[in-house]
Amino acid sequence: MTTVTVLGLGPMGHALAAAFTAADHPTTVWNRTPGKETSLDVTVAATAAQAIAASPLTVVCVRDHRAAQSILDTDALKGRTLVNVTGGSPRQAREMASWAADHGIGYLDGVIVATTDAIGGPEATLFYSGPADVYEKHRGTLAALGENAHHLGEDPGRAAAFDASLQDMLWTSMSGVIHMFALAKAESIGAATIAGHAKAMLGFFPDMIDLLAAQVAADHYPGDAGTLESTAATMDHILDAIRERNLDNGVLTAARTQVRQAIDAGHGSEGFGRLAALQ
Amino acid sequence: MTTVTVLGLGPMGHALAAAFTAADHPTTVWNRTPGKETSLDVTVAATAAQAIAASPLTVVCVRDHRAAQSILDTDALKGRTLVNVTGGSPRQAREMASWAADHGIGYLDGVIVATTDAIGGPEATLFYSGPADVYEKHRGTLAALGENAHHLGEDPGRAAAFDASLQDMLWTSMSGVIHMFALAKAESIGAATIAGHAKAMLGFFPDMIDLLAAQVAADHYPGDAGTLESTAATMDHILDAIRERNLDNGVLTAARTQVRQAIDAGHGSEGFGRLAALQ
Repeated sequence: MTTVTVLGLGPMGHALAAAFTAADHPTTVWNRTPGKETSLDVTVAATAAQAIAASPLTVVCVRDHRAAQSILDTDALKGRTLVNVTGGSPRQAREMASWAADHGIGYLDGVIVATTDAIGGPEATLFYSGPADVYEKHRGTLAALGENAHHLGEDPGRAAAFDASLQDMLWTSMSGVIHMFALAKAESIGAATIAGHAKAMLGFFPDMIDLLAAQVAADHYPGDAGTLESTAATMDHILDAIRERNLDNGVLTAARTQVRQAIDAGHGSEGFGRLAALQ
Repeated sequence: MTTVTVLGLGPMGHALAAAFTAADHPTTVWNRTPGKETSLDVTVAATAAQAIAASPLTVVCVRDHRAAQSILDTDALKGRTLVNVTGGSPRQAREMASWAADHGIGYLDGVIVATTDAIGGPEATLFYSGPADVYEKHRGTLAALGENAHHLGEDPGRAAAFDASLQDMLWTSMSGVIHMFALAKAESIGAATIAGHAKAMLGFFPDMIDLLAAQVAADHYPGDAGTLESTAATMDHILDAIRERNLDNGVLTAARTQVRQAIDAGHGSEGFGRLAALQ
């Protein structure tokens, strides 16, 4: 089996190393603070450069791109492949790919959409972007982290762009869910009760997402299922309810501002999807 | 069959009147601007008071509570029942219930969670709150609007509180979906492509909502599936990606502010659910 190196043994790096060893890849690890590897069947390198030199493929998973850059040894990496699953923006991914190219390093940018306990299993989704030949060369090894892996294209920023788009939806929605619970609680509505209705409402989301996707693709936003004017009135009712309970209204107020701007720009009779084209 | 009166023939009021007549309830209507009833098999009253006098049950569906108050004749309504499905806040519902009680009017506050074309069918959800005996008396007639109807309790503000909580989740999430499309588009990712991944991610939402509901009910927010500190880092990556494309970042910035405030208050190692308890 191919040997692999993992740099960074935070919770996610630890899970990655465990998944590689579970798939019988001899694994070398390095972490700035020693001692994180005690439960792993791995080789511990004394330095990051020594860890990199032990394998054709190094996966780096640290706090941020700056931390990654600070431990990556260009001499050791030259002629090898680096897969960077450290969280970052599309531009950061492109900058690191450019740096890697300048130093003769094969580079893939990766994004892991999974909690640590899902790594290696069917619920983990992994996105990679960068040269197709580099991905094909290491695809079999990377499969140890999860079979549901997608190579999104040559643009190294594409995995980070996918991730940022999806996480934007996720965390904005999570904020909406949390506000729902906060308002329900203030109105003496039980969490489990409102959760049941919320899950029923979720049932309409896939169709709603498909409808909006079709509108965005066509750049046409008819208001027949509801106009921005009617959305504004609904949001005002929600904001009234939030203010009556003195709850934080920052998130919905920001969304309301975008609706107002779209109406001011003459789009009041169009649908909510119009907002995707105005930003 | 029981006779019914509908005040207000905007798109929703029109759908309500059509549903009552489809269920063979003789229906009297009134609208401030005449001529909206031409496609309906209804009796048109000359004044709101005459329309109210024609039926034991009046449903009012106008722009807002102020508009409702301006057309509701207390003399005509005395001893009859008023169901107000005009959108408003919990406090507005409670105020109108109090006004109704002062004038000897039976009052239910109602919320319709449906598009106009779903009225009367299985996809329409209706919430009512107010005295149980008033609801029971008119339940059979109101069933013409949709069988999926819930009487939520005696507090007249409860239907509006349910609605505001659920709509808060809905429109905040919709805002997240729209931002996802905007960022994907700026990164040259096709709408249908990102929509497919978004729908896959949605699959985790029901479990996530149940998990948060249990945390809110227990007022205990463990960070084992992710801490507010890690959420802050993720949000910063998303915000970087949004700023790189000069897109509007107001909504996520507001959500990030709430996370920062929670961390500043010492909750950084707890989970995202903690935010529901801080607002």
